[in-house]
Amino acid sequence: MPSYQAPLRDIRFVTQEVLGFTQHYQALPNAQEAHELQDAILQEGAKFAEQVLAPLNQVGDQQGCQRDAAGQVSTPAGFKAAYQAYVDGGWPSLAQDPEYGGQGLPPSLGMILNEMICSANLAWGMYPGLSHGAMDALRHHGNAEQKSTYLKPLIEGRWTGTMCLTEPHCGTDLGLIKTKAQPQADGSYHISGTKIFISAGDHDLAENIIHLVLAKLPDAPEGTRGISLFIVPKYVPDAQGQVGAANTVTCGALEHKMGIHGNSTCVMNFDAAQGWLVGEPHKGLKCMFTMMNAARIGVGIQGLGLTEVAYQNALAYARERLQMRALTGAKAPEQVADPIIVHPDVRRMLLTQKAFAEGGRALIYYTAQLVDTVEAQGEYAQEADKLLGLLTPIVKAFLTEVAFESTNEGLQVFGGHGFIQEWGMEQFVRDARITRLYEGTTGIQALDLLGRKVLLDQGQTLRSFTKQIHLFCQAQEDKPDMRIFIEPLSQLNKEWGELTMQIGMRALQDKEEVGAAAVDYLMYSGYVCLAYFWAQMAARALQALEAGTQEADFYQAKLHTATFYYQRLLPRTRTHAHILQQDAQSLMQMSAQDFDLGFAI
Amino acid sequence: MPSYQAPLRDIRFVTQEVLGFTQHYQALPNAQEAHELQDAILQEGAKFAEQVLAPLNQVGDQQGCQRDAAGQVSTPAGFKAAYQAYVDGGWPSLAQDPEYGGQGLPPSLGMILNEMICSANLAWGMYPGLSHGAMDALRHHGNAEQKSTYLKPLIEGRWTGTMCLTEPHCGTDLGLIKTKAQPQADGSYHISGTKIFISAGDHDLAENIIHLVLAKLPDAPEGTRGISLFIVPKYVPDAQGQVGAANTVTCGALEHKMGIHGNSTCVMNFDAAQGWLVGEPHKGLKCMFTMMNAARIGVGIQGLGLTEVAYQNALAYARERLQMRALTGAKAPEQVADPIIVHPDVRRMLLTQKAFAEGGRALIYYTAQLVDTVEAQGEYAQEADKLLGLLTPIVKAFLTEVAFESTNEGLQVFGGHGFIQEWGMEQFVRDARITRLYEGTTGIQALDLLGRKVLLDQGQTLRSFTKQIHLFCQAQEDKPDMRIFIEPLSQLNKEWGELTMQIGMRALQDKEEVGAAAVDYLMYSGYVCLAYFWAQMAARALQALEAGTQEADFYQAKLHTATFYYQRLLPRTRTHAHILQQDAQSLMQMSAQDFDLGFAI
Repeated sequence: MPSYQAPLRDIRFVTQEVLGFTQHYQALPNAQEAHELQDAILQEGAKFAEQVLAPLNQVGDQQGCQRDAAGQVSTPAGFKAAYQAYVDGGWPSLAQDPEYGGQGLPPSLGMILNEMICSANLAWGMYPGLSHGAMDALRHHGNAEQKSTYLKPLIEGRWTGTMCLTEPHCGTDLGLIKTKAQPQADGSYHISGTKIFISAGDHDLAENIIHLVLAKLPDAPEGTRGISLFIVPKYVPDAQGQVGAANTVTCGALEHKMGIHGNSTCVMNFDAAQGWLVGEPHKGLKCMFTMMNAARIGVGIQGLGLTEVAYQNALAYARERLQMRALTGAKAPEQVADPIIVHPDVRRMLLTQKAFAEGGRALIYYTAQLVDTVEAQGEYAQEADKLLGLLTPIVKAFLTEVAFESTNEGLQVFGGHGFIQEWGMEQFVRDARITRLYEGTTGIQALDLLGRKVLLDQGQTLRSFTKQIHLFCQAQEDKPDMRIFIEPLSQLNKEWGELTMQIGMRALQDKEEVGAAAVDYLMYSGYVCLAYFWAQMAARALQALEAGTQEADFYQAKLHTATFYYQRLLPRTRTHAHILQQDAQSLMQMSAQDFDLGFAI
Repeated sequence: MPSYQAPLRDIRFVTQEVLGFTQHYQALPNAQEAHELQDAILQEGAKFAEQVLAPLNQVGDQQGCQRDAAGQVSTPAGFKAAYQAYVDGGWPSLAQDPEYGGQGLPPSLGMILNEMICSANLAWGMYPGLSHGAMDALRHHGNAEQKSTYLKPLIEGRWTGTMCLTEPHCGTDLGLIKTKAQPQADGSYHISGTKIFISAGDHDLAENIIHLVLAKLPDAPEGTRGISLFIVPKYVPDAQGQVGAANTVTCGALEHKMGIHGNSTCVMNFDAAQGWLVGEPHKGLKCMFTMMNAARIGVGIQGLGLTEVAYQNALAYARERLQMRALTGAKAPEQVADPIIVHPDVRRMLLTQKAFAEGGRALIYYTAQLVDTVEAQGEYAQEADKLLGLLTPIVKAFLTEVAFESTNEGLQVFGGHGFIQEWGMEQFVRDARITRLYEGTTGIQALDLLGRKVLLDQGQTLRSFTKQIHLFCQAQEDKPDMRIFIEPLSQLNKEWGELTMQIGMRALQDKEEVGAAAVDYLMYSGYVCLAYFWAQMAARALQALEAGTQEADFYQAKLHTATFYYQRLLPRTRTHAHILQQDAQSLMQMSAQDFDLGFAI
């Protein structure tokens, strides 16, 4: 069975030594406690992830969820007890509003905790994860009564939440949804329709489930401007706010999926179910995006979590498995063969995972700081929000693409054993596969990045980010040991702007150029971002080594991994840059009916 | 449920129009019939694959194989009847020796048939596939008695075969095997040991199963030079060659795997089982390599088959699924949204699959010609054998790596639906995952290519292949429409040799350089090979268009796909070339104990 050990030293390296979380927390209002509590919270969270959640990951995959004849869904053995322990530990309330029972700590702490949860048990982590989305939407868009009725029990963890967007015929294109909301005399609505792919849609972990549902009012305009958001509870709360009568929303079926078997993915049937409007009529998509942006970063964190845990297990196997001798002669002559970690290609696979995990962590924790800043609504909130908007699709899509690669490299280290369920490596791959799809596929994230966040913005936010990278490079340029990082980073940073300009010019002539370039552009951007964070980590490691340290090996390993990233992963930008200079014609010129002419007899 | 249509037009394009199978068959001894029968055989094979095998693919995945209390294994519903139909159709004997009941057709025909079988039902196809391996080994290394006893019923399909190599502690490193062979007074041996990952190890399709088993004789030298090959039948044939007494070889367990559920992957226990030596003592590995080389190309064919079928289903979905409007305005204004095939990124995913399927097909069919030539033992046999040796690891590893990418792109086209089992796309991904592992992982293939087939050969075979490419480029250089292909191909062909030299020089200093470069080298080589075949296909398409044709769209689509390959896939060589110029240090410098310093508290 795979194991997991929270990478607390690496987490501390990023938070304390690279990204200056101490100063960051000090600059936030109401976050004076965050710095002091941080270590204790992460250590407790690590224990919970390692000892409670990780042992349930494989059993959750094997058992999956069950739906009984009455339509009630039960989760795998142990999931309910783990959820109760999570509630008892006060974890749901960590970063929530004290007015409704939250602890008021900055969101970043919850995001770091979430990394550990995702490493330990992704399918389980989705239950509280979806609740967080619901809490975000209610906090921002719910009225006072809705907050006191729904937000409080969600924060306590007594209830959980869902996001109900997708329908059988539409996912990306929400303008097409058919679910209807019929106004009632008492101010509530009757919601009717079918939603699919509803994660945590029904389960046995909590007393009640609060669905946040997109539906159309009778007078709704066409398309996405006619979508409204509704609260539809599984059980309608009574006057005391306790669980009351069953609503007419039921789980019609569980989906049979490639992975995340421990999470209940439901077809939800709304049969004139009682619901209440959240925010203004027809403005539901905007409310939903509040949830969705956080959810997208959450999916990036899932990618990071899986990359880390796959790496840890591949590493353990690579040290134990004896097979062949090193090409330069036996390294473990006392054994029948050398441990496979002596082989360069096994090291390539391990270092790929390691570089993506540690680089991805720095990128995500940086966005976590931006989330803190935005939520605190201080003087830099607007600037942080723009940068967060730019980085969100990169975090979501780039880190899940490389997570799929990384979990696959982890499996590959095991050779044929990696294909066997018992070892648990193939579960990481199957679980990782969904992260490239949900909350907007990689293609959709790429369009969001290039189309909306870069071109529509006239490249303004991108320029402020590349300027930040430029200033970092300038500050490092007199350090000879940093040259191997700073030279390529400066060049790429410049090229990033140039390629953006080129695509922008082509897009003026033909809008399809945006779609044609988008995914390569996103991947290119992701590699540059990670290069920036790896250079920062290298700079910190050099500084520590120069100052003298008890942990020279730790910092040396950071430099080695940074070097690996620059020499063997960053060159992927060469391919993307090359493709980004091509126009859309090679994609668009074939007529749709010519794609299958080879199947004819 | 996914569907499959044999791409007979594309197959004919490659065999008849690009690779000149007519002349090829005419040049072979005993192959006069091959050309005439070819079309009929492929059309019958297509029907069998489409109508008998494809409908069983999903049910095979869902049911998997079962092992009863007595240790007998049963295959999924329908597999046995399909196998009987396969036997009744005379398919097992297609390319086998007429002396033992074979039809004596060239192996290439069987390989083309195999592509269709792998598209339709990979897990089923492995049962006859393993038999072919056993037949190859017996044909080359068995004595007359062994051939008449075992080869005949294998050719008839009454019996099937297996390859028993791997043991729990060793797969790649066969020198470590522990299975023992104890000589008996009657000339037979008692084989004792445990083999794992035995595909088709036990099942209910055939009367008997012939295991080809690697084991060590009592006087065996250490390592791979002390391995012998044995025939161990499930039931020992009686004097009439009929199924006799049960041998002491049993299936101890079925592995629970990520994919290929319809194939029984067995732990096989040999408990002093009666066996007979094949070939000379201690020369078993050489005999096994006869099977393994064919098996490796067979795995490349599996990759091709999965790429093709995933493409077909993704294409069908992309034409039907309505979601969003094209960025340049509605293309299907009469519908609620445009079919997603209008979006450039969906086209990128489809064209990636299409380019790998069609390019991979040309590469494999070319190697199939080489196999024919080698088997025919004519004047070019030795030359063909060397080239086949060079291309085999590329076919095996490159085409399975891109098959995994392609099946994943196919899944991605479906968005969230791709993750749901019902659609069948995730099965293609899970089934494809094994192809990167078995019969030698990608890393092992890469070492075989760079270490053995290129450097140990002093680059001789590579030079003769790059010369062939060079001559092709020269012959095309006066054709303006070919310039977009020939210019990059010539450059790459030259660079291929230069990079090889560079790595060779570094390897003289440090053998680890071979392992460090191997996988990038293999992938680079694969992209160049496909570029060569895509240029040939483009040349043929241009020729047809210039000559005038009823099928202008078909040939135009070939040119479009070739252009896509050159503009958007071939640039991946830029990254590999960049990495191939780095030395091994970034992989080797980190000490094995420093890989986990970040997990500490």
